[in-house]
Amino acid sequence: MIRFNCDYGEGAHPRVLQKLADTNFEQTPGYGEDEYCAQAAELIRKECKREDIAVHFIVGGTQTNLIVIAAALRTHQGVISAASGHINIHETGSIEATGHKVISLPDDGGKITAQQIEKYYLDHIHDESFEHIVQPKMVYISNPTEYGTVYNRNELVSISNVCRQYGLYLYMDGARMGYGLCAEGNDLDLPFITECCDVFYIGGTKVGALFGEAVVIKNEELKKDFRYIIKQRGAMLAKGRLLGLQFLALFEDGLYYEISAHADQLAEKIKKAFLDEGYSPLFPSSTNQQFFILPNSLLGKLKEKYSFATWGKFDDTQSIVRFCTSWATKEESVSDLVADIHAYAQ
Amino acid sequence: MIRFNCDYGEGAHPRVLQKLADTNFEQTPGYGEDEYCAQAAELIRKECKREDIAVHFIVGGTQTNLIVIAAALRTHQGVISAASGHINIHETGSIEATGHKVISLPDDGGKITAQQIEKYYLDHIHDESFEHIVQPKMVYISNPTEYGTVYNRNELVSISNVCRQYGLYLYMDGARMGYGLCAEGNDLDLPFITECCDVFYIGGTKVGALFGEAVVIKNEELKKDFRYIIKQRGAMLAKGRLLGLQFLALFEDGLYYEISAHADQLAEKIKKAFLDEGYSPLFPSSTNQQFFILPNSLLGKLKEKYSFATWGKFDDTQSIVRFCTSWATKEESVSDLVADIHAYAQ
Amino acid sequence: MIRFNCDYGEGAHPRVLQKLADTNFEQTPGYGEDEYCAQAAELIRKECKREDIAVHFIVGGTQTNLIVIAAALRTHQGVISAASGHINIHETGSIEATGHKVISLPDDGGKITAQQIEKYYLDHIHDESFEHIVQPKMVYISNPTEYGTVYNRNELVSISNVCRQYGLYLYMDGARMGYGLCAEGNDLDLPFITECCDVFYIGGTKVGALFGEAVVIKNEELKKDFRYIIKQRGAMLAKGRLLGLQFLALFEDGLYYEISAHADQLAEKIKKAFLDEGYSPLFPSSTNQQFFILPNSLLGKLKEKYSFATWGKFDDTQSIVRFCTSWATKEESVSDLVADIHAYAQ
Amino acid sequence: MIRFNCDYGEGAHPRVLQKLADTNFEQTPGYGEDEYCAQAAELIRKECKREDIAVHFIVGGTQTNLIVIAAALRTHQGVISAASGHINIHETGSIEATGHKVISLPDDGGKITAQQIEKYYLDHIHDESFEHIVQPKMVYISNPTEYGTVYNRNELVSISNVCRQYGLYLYMDGARMGYGLCAEGNDLDLPFITECCDVFYIGGTKVGALFGEAVVIKNEELKKDFRYIIKQRGAMLAKGRLLGLQFLALFEDGLYYEISAHADQLAEKIKKAFLDEGYSPLFPSSTNQQFFILPNSLLGKLKEKYSFATWGKFDDTQSIVRFCTSWATKEESVSDLVADIHAYAQ
Repeated sequence: MIRFNCDYGEGAHPRVLQKLADTNFEQTPGYGEDEYCAQAAELIRKECKREDIAVHFIVGGTQTNLIVIAAALRTHQGVISAASGHINIHETGSIEATGHKVISLPDDGGKITAQQIEKYYLDHIHDESFEHIVQPKMVYISNPTEYGTVYNRNELVSISNVCRQYGLYLYMDGARMGYGLCAEGNDLDLPFITECCDVFYIGGTKVGALFGEAVVIKNEELKKDFRYIIKQRGAMLAKGRLLGLQFLALFEDGLYYEISAHADQLAEKIKKAFLDEGYSPLFPSSTNQQFFILPNSLLGKLKEKYSFATWGKFDDTQSIVRFCTSWATKEESVSDLVADIHAYAQ
Repeated sequence: MIRFNCDYGEGAHPRVLQKLADTNFEQTPGYGEDEYCAQAAELIRKECKREDIAVHFIVGGTQTNLIVIAAALRTHQGVISAASGHINIHETGSIEATGHKVISLPDDGGKITAQQIEKYYLDHIHDESFEHIVQPKMVYISNPTEYGTVYNRNELVSISNVCRQYGLYLYMDGARMGYGLCAEGNDLDLPFITECCDVFYIGGTKVGALFGEAVVIKNEELKKDFRYIIKQRGAMLAKGRLLGLQFLALFEDGLYYEISAHADQLAEKIKKAFLDEGYSPLFPSSTNQQFFILPNSLLGKLKEKYSFATWGKFDDTQSIVRFCTSWATKEESVSDLVADIHAYAQ
Repeated sequence: MIRFNCDYGEGAHPRVLQKLADTNFEQTPGYGEDEYCAQAAELIRKECKREDIAVHFIVGGTQTNLIVIAAALRTHQGVISAASGHINIHETGSIEATGHKVISLPDDGGKITAQQIEKYYLDHIHDESFEHIVQPKMVYISNPTEYGTVYNRNELVSISNVCRQYGLYLYMDGARMGYGLCAEGNDLDLPFITECCDVFYIGGTKVGALFGEAVVIKNEELKKDFRYIIKQRGAMLAKGRLLGLQFLALFEDGLYYEISAHADQLAEKIKKAFLDEGYSPLFPSSTNQQFFILPNSLLGKLKEKYSFATWGKFDDTQSIVRFCTSWATKEESVSDLVADIHAYAQ
Repeated sequence: MIRFNCDYGEGAHPRVLQKLADTNFEQTPGYGEDEYCAQAAELIRKECKREDIAVHFIVGGTQTNLIVIAAALRTHQGVISAASGHINIHETGSIEATGHKVISLPDDGGKITAQQIEKYYLDHIHDESFEHIVQPKMVYISNPTEYGTVYNRNELVSISNVCRQYGLYLYMDGARMGYGLCAEGNDLDLPFITECCDVFYIGGTKVGALFGEAVVIKNEELKKDFRYIIKQRGAMLAKGRLLGLQFLALFEDGLYYEISAHADQLAEKIKKAFLDEGYSPLFPSSTNQQFFILPNSLLGKLKEKYSFATWGKFDDTQSIVRFCTSWATKEESVSDLVADIHAYAQ
């Protein structure tokens, strides 16, 4: 069985693992106050081209989301998210468990717009019962989104401008950041994202690390006492260096981009095969997640050899499925799949 | 200016106030452990025709909602509500502040259906990532709803059956319960509601009391330690008898129904005047809240003499407005309004 | 049975009740946005001799405490309190339910000192694991304390200075404020308290109102969006004017002080009787709560005619009891008690 | 510099790391639903000699504590802990952030007794204001404690009996479980602990793993929906197998005990050296943490070559310090230290 289910099926890129092995017997201070974390943070500051950003390393994405949001919001404030946003539907109410409402806006392929945000904000402040409604204070976007789509510069800068105008924090969930940055047609890069956002994270778990997300905080208000909150939420890894070391491996010589590009290119091949056979994508994606509407008959045949995620029924004869590549996906697995798509589609 | 804005513009029905005055110098135990609360609870048990229900008195509706939900749910559980439900949009995220997600379903005039609830529940348990999604454990309905509509016996029993089948608690917010029970065409009564629900409350604040809601708990699981939670949420009134006394006044000789019927009958007159002039209600209501779609030109004239709530723009020339009666609304105020509707509509 | 159990056994001072009756049929806006609340707030600003303070009215004390603290603290911050502080032991964990630790310091008769606070703060920031410990950010004191004692000017200004030096908010719980301000030997007044504290409340429930506490906020940081949080915690009374009206009655012509002095003077008579018979107070109090260590034999006799609170066993033959007077205590009740103390003590 | 600061200074035991490397390219399901987690859970069931226990793997200790407690308690309930308990003082209020009070009891060397627990429980239920006080529902003990001491069978069974009698859950924090089980004089083992506790965890982070704690749940009430809560608190590791693999390495052939015994034996040598020179331990410990009261002059000399944790000042000339060994401590490091203790102490 060849797995295209998800991008966290294997361990870590060998160079990541090697670095853990090489340093295994060193004694370092705990809780992220070691030299490796400092070096990795410095590398990320260089990638983002800003010296004044704070960088923290956290084990997983849900943890990161709830810590950032707990750090940012007062008790009566909520976070605006696409309806399909990970915090809204796939984190078992982690944000509500910190006391905050996720205010969902209808999305298009996982994306929301500056216009939607502005309208929601203005409707709120003009409502005569505004104090009876959760106050929006943060905007959460994912890039790439949960559907594999990406924001472009115009879209992101518009959202950023609306957020600044109305005093909303802009937070980007970058669980699959690398796959977005290396996608065909993408025009974002880390310095531009840093410029637009108050806080974001660069995902490691799905992009070559065993685990780990690097949180980048630009807004001074969000920097204060951030480590207290990491500890309070049970996210201050005793052997914090494990996170620093992995991000060192990913960023010291471009490995992060290299493996992200690899996954995106393989995903493009799969996409092309489906398109060539006349199938429709659910949304246009150039990243490592490809959602397609496929006939159940085809899926029945593919299932014998490949595993992938079924997202739901499209109609009586077709389903929505996701094929996912990663840093670990092999060229030959994709070649096999492409050949089989062409063979079975006939 | 004659006010039809809301049903909490005046103080209390004179008989309620009188009872507070009559007992003012008596010394009683605090925190709801006095004889008047015991008597009022007993009256309510009789109204509901069940001896084994627990009755607690709480000052306000938002407070009641958050206490009931905090008492019922474990940390990973959420409450299903109509999108228009009070807990979803008009309580400043009070439920989220207790740690729980409000799972909103699209509503029709404030109502949701057994079918919607069942579908949501089954989708959840059949989702392969079900543990990544908030677990639905309670259903919250308002009766009358925020739009003045009411559930009928068939609808309520269907919802109740679905809830029992899947282990969901059914909770009815009865902030305007009296106006529902006395509405033309209503077929619910308190014993039937008691039978169908695990917990509900009978609203006093909007139906003749200075303040106060009577929570009725039938399900044994929800009864346990309920007073601890009332205290924890700051809702255990030191002079708890003030609540008991008011509900005594409302229920000892049918005052609650008498004043509710009064408000409903006056609302019917307003409704009839609008219908006679050819205007459309937003939703069909026979309770004390009447939502109508009216021309801005008419509203302009009515505003000179009457105040009412504007719910939003319907189109370029019409708005949605709410006219609200209460136990305190005067016959002559309604007669004046009806005459003016006919005069101005021409 | 004559009750000296507590200061919330009766209803309200007749002038308070009269004002509710006089205005009962007026129609006013809800949620505290009426003219009476505005007038009462203005009166309190005059009492405090500061124009820039925000004044909010809330039904009860536990509610007030949890709202003020939820408004003030970020998630990793805690509030320092005397071990005997109401928030620490008698509010069913309401502060923890908002997510914050109550950091308890050993107290002397309910009071803590500037030195204790400073030491705790400095120990925290100098601890090498300081991020693993809740950050102290607010100091909570009660005046009078739960044991009836009061702070003097020197003590309060010292605490205030330490708080300012280290960026801690100072919050005074004034559930029995009147009884403190009118106590023999007290040198505090509302302008001085306003000067020293960031936020405090003037208790109504125990001092002549049916219910109600007036929160006074001086610190700008705590004023922002306070009403959102009142609503979120279920504390925005629909008929908010009921609170404004009561505080109008209490402050428009000095009633608050008049009835507080009455209670204190009666308490002094009780104290004198016990002292004259050679019994020891638990702590020195000149307010309406008198805690004494009394022989069980005496208590046995007093119990036949009077009720009072038993605080616990002192030793095999003596108990700690509290006698409490209030605005409603009658002169003759105290005369009877005093006579009986002298009679039974022989 | 030779470090005796803590037991999490190095990476992982080589056999643990090797297992991660060996399986690195395998594709497995995520979120702990893989075969390795299943095997590791089975091994732990065998160690505990009970087939019906649930086993979950979580990254860190604070995370584990807050998840177990969030899973166990209703909103008005609290957890009893030694004042020195990790949850009470070193987790930045993580338990309060889940809404629950930590009820601290004075401890003796980190330990509390069955008598203390019983007294606290009975005082609570007999208090006439019991509903105004947090309800105790769980007892948290650490074994070994934060001071390196251990409970014996008699003590543990007494605590367990009290807990059962009064319906309290018993939870043991076993962050350093191995060092306790292998300590000289210890009479506990995993089957006995399983018998006595409702839930406990076996620490990996400090005993040879890169990270990871194995939660063992015996009580059926606590098993239900546990994975939802793991996910909600951000603790469901995407590549969950990393946890399973590490516990496989630790338990498949006794490595856990072997390395624990190693650390304990080295700690005994350090203890003996201090005792031989006439110094006093803070509390008697036979585990890997040794707290001693030492003259500052001696510490000054030791600091040149060794690092260790300073716990505070004992008096003007002596300090309390902690020397900590681990699975990774080298024999020669301890020999050097012992020699230097004898040399400098003269």
